[in-house]
Amino acid sequence: MELRSLIKRNGFFITFEGVEGSGKSKHIHQLYEELQKDGRSLVLTREPGGTRIGEKIRDLILDPEQVEMDPAAELLLYLAARAQHIHEKILPALKENKIVLCDRFHDSTYAYQGGGRGLDIKVIESMVQILFHQLKPDITFLLDIEPKLALDRIQKRESLNRIDAEGLAFHETVRSNYLTLVNQDPNRFRIIDTNREFSEVHENILNETLLLLKVPSS
Amino acid sequence: MELRSLIKRNGFFITFEGVEGSGKSKHIHQLYEELQKDGRSLVLTREPGGTRIGEKIRDLILDPEQVEMDPAAELLLYLAARAQHIHEKILPALKENKIVLCDRFHDSTYAYQGGGRGLDIKVIESMVQILFHQLKPDITFLLDIEPKLALDRIQKRESLNRIDAEGLAFHETVRSNYLTLVNQDPNRFRIIDTNREFSEVHENILNETLLLLKVPSS
Repeated sequence: MELRSLIKRNGFFITFEGVEGSGKSKHIHQLYEELQKDGRSLVLTREPGGTRIGEKIRDLILDPEQVEMDPAAELLLYLAARAQHIHEKILPALKENKIVLCDRFHDSTYAYQGGGRGLDIKVIESMVQILFHQLKPDITFLLDIEPKLALDRIQKRESLNRIDAEGLAFHETVRSNYLTLVNQDPNRFRIIDTNREFSEVHENILNETLLLLKVPSS
Repeated sequence: MELRSLIKRNGFFITFEGVEGSGKSKHIHQLYEELQKDGRSLVLTREPGGTRIGEKIRDLILDPEQVEMDPAAELLLYLAARAQHIHEKILPALKENKIVLCDRFHDSTYAYQGGGRGLDIKVIESMVQILFHQLKPDITFLLDIEPKLALDRIQKRESLNRIDAEGLAFHETVRSNYLTLVNQDPNRFRIIDTNREFSEVHENILNETLLLLKVPSS
């Protein structure tokens, strides 16, 4: 069952996932730079956002005035932003045979919204399937880290006020959700242990990517 | 399958549906006034909108600057506004045993968005089921009118620029979609022929409503 047919695509779709503090954003930028040097045709993007409409939706989701945002409404707003992102940015780039690097995608929805807020993760999965199942990443790097270490990293870069007693439990739930997703679709995921030197982690990601790109090289 | 459990409710949930020009909005207001006179505890609301977040979503949907709005994103924004509306306004009123009169609800989504814009109506129905199936109107008045007559009424109240060559075909599709919905759930619908005097139509709606309210009178 699907909402509509997505246009057939080429290209190569890579997503990065992981908890805050896993180094995800730094590594996706580093990979982007390396692949650019290598002469690849690339798009770097992120969720939520990536389009004008998506940014407006993001503003609405994050607006501190909207104190009574319903969890289902929030989920639907995230999915609306994703539909726009796919339609306007990701799919056109893939059709032009580009490599798309996307910081967070479906898996973030499952890991962060599934289980929490009283929403059933299996039902979220069904909705994502209905809406977008034809657009699956070719590969997903899960930047994995011990929740305690991720918290330490965040503490270094953010004010202590944002690290409250619930911080560790929250990170642990998200990580556990991610590992469940890996078990469900092991071929798509590469688990990257980020409890190593940055350069070592980067080399790991770059090598995996180049290996994957060998066949459909642009 | 459902996204979450909606709280059990009392009250009585009445929706009005129909094409533009069917007299829907005038009749729901008239019914509201009559029931108020009768001492009933009531809420009158409409979609999309009805809440602060819903109005912001409505503004985004209708914003003429957002020329490249994706149809799936648009659908999800409508559903997000509905989730918020149900959570914040409709369900609390029903729990207080009020009568809720709502101008447009699920059926508008099917009639207007289903079939058009490349989205599969059966899939839209599945999504609505997953999201909201526990909150079904107790009764839905479909204000039915020949599309040609509806167009004549609209032409009297709006500028001719908005009535273009596609007007009639569009109204016919929407009406046909509505009648399909009636066939699928005949017990919930009351088809009201609005090609009659206003007072006659109103009396028809009021009598049907009072009959329905006899048992769970507030």
